[in-house]
Order: sequence, then structure tokens, then C-alpha cells
Amino acid sequence: MLIAVDAVGGDHYPHNPVQGAVLATKENAEVEILLTGPESVIKEELDKLEYDKSRIHILHAPEIIGMKDSPTAAVKTKRNSSITLGLSAHKNGECSAFVSAGNTGALLAASMFLLGKLDGVLRPTIAATYPTLKGISLLVDAGANLELKPQMYYQFAVMSSIYAKEIMKIENPTIGLLNVGEEPEKGLDLHKEVYQMLSDFDSFKGNIEGGDILLGKTDIYLSDGFSGNVLLKFGEAIPEILKSLLTKTMKEKGLDEPSQKLVYDVIGTTMKPFNYEHVGGIPFLGVNGMSLVGHGSSSPVAIKNMILNAVKCVEHEINDKIVSTINKKDSVE
Amino acid sequence: MLIAVDAVGGDHYPHNPVQGAVLATKENAEVEILLTGPESVIKEELDKLEYDKSRIHILHAPEIIGMKDSPTAAVKTKRNSSITLGLSAHKNGECSAFVSAGNTGALLAASMFLLGKLDGVLRPTIAATYPTLKGISLLVDAGANLELKPQMYYQFAVMSSIYAKEIMKIENPTIGLLNVGEEPEKGLDLHKEVYQMLSDFDSFKGNIEGGDILLGKTDIYLSDGFSGNVLLKFGEAIPEILKSLLTKTMKEKGLDEPSQKLVYDVIGTTMKPFNYEHVGGIPFLGVNGMSLVGHGSSSPVAIKNMILNAVKCVEHEINDKIVSTINKKDSVE
Repeated sequence: MLIAVDAVGGDHYPHNPVQGAVLATKENAEVEILLTGPESVIKEELDKLEYDKSRIHILHAPEIIGMKDSPTAAVKTKRNSSITLGLSAHKNGECSAFVSAGNTGALLAASMFLLGKLDGVLRPTIAATYPTLKGISLLVDAGANLELKPQMYYQFAVMSSIYAKEIMKIENPTIGLLNVGEEPEKGLDLHKEVYQMLSDFDSFKGNIEGGDILLGKTDIYLSDGFSGNVLLKFGEAIPEILKSLLTKTMKEKGLDEPSQKLVYDVIGTTMKPFNYEHVGGIPFLGVNGMSLVGHGSSSPVAIKNMILNAVKCVEHEINDKIVSTINKKDSVE
Repeated sequence: MLIAVDAVGGDHYPHNPVQGAVLATKENAEVEILLTGPESVIKEELDKLEYDKSRIHILHAPEIIGMKDSPTAAVKTKRNSSITLGLSAHKNGECSAFVSAGNTGALLAASMFLLGKLDGVLRPTIAATYPTLKGISLLVDAGANLELKPQMYYQFAVMSSIYAKEIMKIENPTIGLLNVGEEPEKGLDLHKEVYQMLSDFDSFKGNIEGGDILLGKTDIYLSDGFSGNVLLKFGEAIPEILKSLLTKTMKEKGLDEPSQKLVYDVIGTTMKPFNYEHVGGIPFLGVNGMSLVGHGSSSPVAIKNMILNAVKCVEHEINDKIVSTINKKDSVE
């Protein structure tokens, strides 16, 4: 299976994506990689590494879409970017998926523009993994759609349930609706309508309040993209901020080095689930193809995990399952 | 100065409100208290305490609005509740303020119904204190108005700036707009409009992303009430959840008791700013009167601090300042 990897995406290119690609070939013997980006940049990075030359290929793409570039403008003007050419190669059937730690907005725009939507899907969505007391939940939408219609919540529930079941191996994923209170009549008319729409399904567990999120009350949290994006970034910032706060406290208390080490060790272990490296990246759900996005700061291990996640998504045919569920029957599986 | 205190509001009535009222009279010699609620319940609680009988009075209100009661229904049907009669006493000039740790929705509805809005104010708002790396920020709106119009953001900025300056003693409070990105063109049309509307003011520091919130990037975070409410409850839940996670980690690591004690001690100190007790409660801004709401789980100390905060708000005449700023000129002070 050939997976295209954006060699110049994210905050640490080409080092992290190229390293991650090589790691993926070492962990999964079936995987081949198509690195997209300026050939000279990729070659220089590859030269530093030991790798199986028969399984890592290069697709020359001279242009780079930066993390701060305006998504739609970049996709329109940079026709020879690593993102555009990588996704085009996927569209043309030259590779099974495209993964990138680059500009999320540009990746979504290019995926929509080049791959289109799955049959019956109103809007593709960005789901994000969210660490909780119980493990990992999915937060959807995490910023692709700032405003939603009730039917979109329903489709996001269907798509993320399939992802949770197939890829995260959660047998019967439960669904909660992010809201300002538990009762069905809480929130805007929109939320009341979604609540009613989902209430027939066993998997729907009702409204989820802000204080419930970290408890992992359900496997999937449905949210508009505005609140979802704020929550996602808030959660990502917690470990770093906590560390700063603890350092300050320990300094004030005058703790000796072994004691400091002990505290850092306990906190480090506790915050591990907040490390986005383990998942690496997940696909835009609803796109007619397999396009995965990872965190801009993705480490080589995170890129490797995103590549292996792409392989799983292809093998489990999650897009086929989404299309058949959305178009066949009115149910949240 | 006479402050009415809801003796049957919150999760721990009558104990916590009555204890808090007595504490307030001990800390501030100028304060007198009017406890509202069923007389027998209040008397029984007061009998357990030592207090200055000349400074603690009772306003008999036989009905209790529960934490789970529907706000508007409760206000309409329970005309003799501690909230309704307490706010009526304030409206009639019998006391300078009303404070409660009870049903927030009912308190807001009753405050609107009985006291009305300040001249020129479109909508009253709930501001909430939010702990950050730098101290305390104000999150506004925290749930009173799920959807906002641009002019409402502007007024919330004015009102919370006055509160921050007068009561929190922040000399030049800075303002940020909660959004999904830093750039002025991020978010919905609504956010772009608010950004433009506020951009003339020195105090406006632009958009604040989810990851910036805990950093304390600005003194005031402007938000719609939906996202604000989710964030508020999320933040409140952090200390408890962190403690559970740490306990689990330490158990797994098999840490001995002194080591566990050390970690809990460091975390306890670090999480202190997240303890809502210190502020107690703050007023609904924009209401034509002084009506303060505290957390349902308010301790006696939290109630005491809310009472003393009410005194400060009255002394600093924040309502007069709000009215003159909103009606006089187009500025964010």
C-alpha cells in the first residue's frame, strides 16, 4: 500500500515527516511511501537516514503551503504544492491516502476541492481525539464547520461512530451532545432539535456539559466547530501550562531536586494521554478519499502513527461504510 | 449597609449561606445581613452559631426555588421564594444588594423581571472569573446569552471592563475576543464584525484562541454564552479530574505515602487559583440593581466573600459607571 506523505507540512519539516515516513516503513512491511515536496529538500533529508530505497519514493512538488497561508488562496494559487500534488496523486489512484501535518485549513479546502464529498454527505468534518479519564473520546466537529444544521450533527454522529468502531475499536460508541445543561430543553433551538433527532438511538446519551468532557462520559462529543475548536486548543494547552504552574509552585516551596523529579515524573505519566503523538492524525470524515491531518507540531513518531492510521482506515473501508450507512437507513451505528 | 442573603440557595443550604452571612458580619463591621428563606429553617441554623443579633435579620420567605427548577416557571409560580422576596426587598430599597448561591437561571430571570435592565443596556450578562497563569481573567458571557449580536459584545466589554477596574483593581483591563484563530478574518461574520467594532480601542488585544485562555492573555475574554458556559464548566472540573488522574498514576507507580503527600501538596497549591471560593460570586452586569450569584457548591467562606464583594460593588457604584459609559460615549474603558 502506497501512502503519500507531505514532506514539507507542519512546524518541523522536512525532518519530522521524512523521519516519520521511514519509521512507518520499518514498522509495517507492507507500506510504501510517496514523499511530496521539493525533491532536493526531501533528498537532502533522506540522505541523513538509513532506509529501504525500494519503498520510499519522491513526488516532486516545488511549492510549499505555509502554516500561516490563507487556506483557499493558497490552494488556488499554489497549484504545485506538496498538498495539491499529493492529493491529486491520491485522486488519480496513484496512492491509497495522503497524510500531512500542514495547514489544516488548506488541507481541508484542497481535499474538498480535489476529492469532493462522499455521496450523501452534506459537509465533511474534522474529528479530533480528546483525552479523558476513561481513555480517548472523539470531538466532532473540531473546527471545519463553525455553524451546523441539525442534519449535519446527525451525519457527524454517523461518520464518527463508524470511525470509532472500525479504527478505535470501540464496540458500541456512545454519543453526547455538547450543551449548556443536561436537560433536553437546554441550549438553542438547534440543540433541542438535534437532541430530539438523536433521542431514538440507543447510542445517544443526551447532553454533555463542559464539566463532563474530561470525564469521558461518551465516546463521541458532538459540537459545532466553534466551540469544538476552542475546546480542542484548550485541551492541547493543558499539559504545558500545568507544567509551568507546577514549576512555579515548586520553586516557591523550595523543593529539592529529587522531590521535583518525583512530581514531574507523576505529572508526565498522568499527562501522557494528552500527548497527541499516539494517534498522529485522523482523516477528514466525509471526504471522497482518504486525507489525514495531524498536529502542526507532530513528531516523527506522530507522523509514523498517522501513516499507520491511514493504512487502517483504507483497510477498514470506512468511506464505503459511511456512504452505505448515510444513504441506506436512518440510524446511528 | 444591609445585604440580603438567600439562606436556602445552593447545594448546602441553610448551613453554608447562614454561616457565610455570620462570617461576613465578623469580617466587616459595617455590614448587616437580611437572611431570606423559611424563618424556622434559618432560626434553627442561626441557633447553632454565635453572632451579633443586632446585625442579622430574617425576611421570612416560605418557598424555595430548587437547583433543578425551571427558571422562568419557578419565578412565575413561587412568588414567595427566598429569591423573589429578597430581590423585591432590594428593589424597594430595603437593602443594598441580594446575593445567592442558588439556581443561576432563576436568579437571572428574577433579577430581570423584578429589577429590569440598566438604562441603555441591551442584555444583562453573567461574567465569571477564570483562573489563568497570570491571575484571574473575566469570562463574559458565561451562559446568560447563548447567542449574541455584535453590539452586545461591545456592551459586555464596557460592563466587564468597569467591573475589572473597580472591583478587581486591574488598572487598564485588556480585552480579547474568543475565536478560532488569531487573524481578524477568523470566525463567523459576527466575530469579524465585533473585531472591527473593538479594534479602535487600545484595550482590545484581538482574538484569543482556546490555547491562550489559561495563559491569561487578556483580562477579559469576550465569548458567546454557549462557548463561555462550556469553558467555565470545563475549567471548574479540572482540579478534581486532575486529582483523580494523579491518584491513579501514583497507585500504579506504587508511591509511598510521603511521596503521595508531596505530590498532593504541590498540586493543591498549584490549583488554588481554581478554587472559586476566593471570589465567591459576582453581580449580573447590566441589571438595574445589585444581584450577585455564586457557585452552587459555595462554601461558607465563598458566601462570605460574595457578600463582601456585593458591598464593594455598591460602594464603587459600578452601575452608575456602566450607565454613564454606555450612554455617554462610544468607548471601552
